[in-house]
Amino acid sequence: MINYPNGSHAVFKSKEPKKKNSDTVYKNRGMDFENDINLSLEFFDANDLAIITKRPTPINVVRVDYTHGAKIVDAYFEKQSTTDYNGVYRGKYIDFEAKNTKSKTSLPLHNITPHQISHLEKVIKHGGIAFFVISLESLDKVYLLDASFVISFYKSKERASIPVSEIMEKGIEIKQGYMPRYEILKAIDEAYFHEKNN
Amino acid sequence: MINYPNGSHAVFKSKEPKKKNSDTVYKNRGMDFENDINLSLEFFDANDLAIITKRPTPINVVRVDYTHGAKIVDAYFEKQSTTDYNGVYRGKYIDFEAKNTKSKTSLPLHNITPHQISHLEKVIKHGGIAFFVISLESLDKVYLLDASFVISFYKSKERASIPVSEIMEKGIEIKQGYMPRYEILKAIDEAYFHEKNN
Repeated sequence: MINYPNGSHAVFKSKEPKKKNSDTVYKNRGMDFENDINLSLEFFDANDLAIITKRPTPINVVRVDYTHGAKIVDAYFEKQSTTDYNGVYRGKYIDFEAKNTKSKTSLPLHNITPHQISHLEKVIKHGGIAFFVISLESLDKVYLLDASFVISFYKSKERASIPVSEIMEKGIEIKQGYMPRYEILKAIDEAYFHEKNN
Repeated sequence: MINYPNGSHAVFKSKEPKKKNSDTVYKNRGMDFENDINLSLEFFDANDLAIITKRPTPINVVRVDYTHGAKIVDAYFEKQSTTDYNGVYRGKYIDFEAKNTKSKTSLPLHNITPHQISHLEKVIKHGGIAFFVISLESLDKVYLLDASFVISFYKSKERASIPVSEIMEKGIEIKQGYMPRYEILKAIDEAYFHEKNN
């Protein structure tokens, strides 16, 4: 299975018949995670709390057929060179990447590209807020983990994954509910504005 | 000619034979304008001044052929519901849309969507910096125009375009050079940090 950039999956996967094996279940959970983030962001937008949007998946367009309007007939998904989400909250620039793991022990870093690490470093350098939203599926928990922690972990190259115990220790739990599904803004308040919400 | 979202043009237009009529010349100028913005942003990035990126053009993927890797064989360009550019500079969230006009008298507003206006309003509400970068081709001048001005103009609906005279009066000229091609950051300094650079 080719690893597409986050989100693009949902666009066309729904056209295919659903398989019932456990792999598919996990894939769907990953999709649910992304959908739940998107719904949370829509909630924040609709309630005038923040405007954070998902960057479209970059697609390399090779050929367009103009005979009936403009139909793209040859194109390929590209890796996002930045992160998936950015926007503004409480006057601050927000930038984050969402990662999902089924593992009970660690978050593998191989899905994070050097470009993304470099991008997050720059965001921090220019005064933005940068973090990862990490879903620990096996524990049904979601954490906000500051990007600087992930960057130093990534650069040390000692381990190819971040232990779940460290994510739980250094991260801030993102409470889950109905609306919004993920209380991402409350976690930002706690992590970067030093406010503790209930 | 169908009006594609900014930037997507460049991807495939180069595959077509170049036409020499005046329309093409103007189209290419529009492309040059976008390319020059992109090059300016790369310069700011490379020189650690700001990290502002172009959002990929959203594409609605209808069908993917998996027989040889994953080739998109049916897809369509979509209108950007936000703006083309956003990022962080001096700790502030930056969001802007680039518009080009050949007209000597005014910038038509029909290319600006209600979604974009709504998006820019939200950016301002949440404390971000929002503006338009407007290229007045006939005068070979480029201006930064605060989004709030464009929003009120758009909402008044009295006129379907902003007179060039108003752009020059209310906007801040973006100096043009070699590297960076457009001194966008200096214009931001002047407009939002009340600093006058030379």
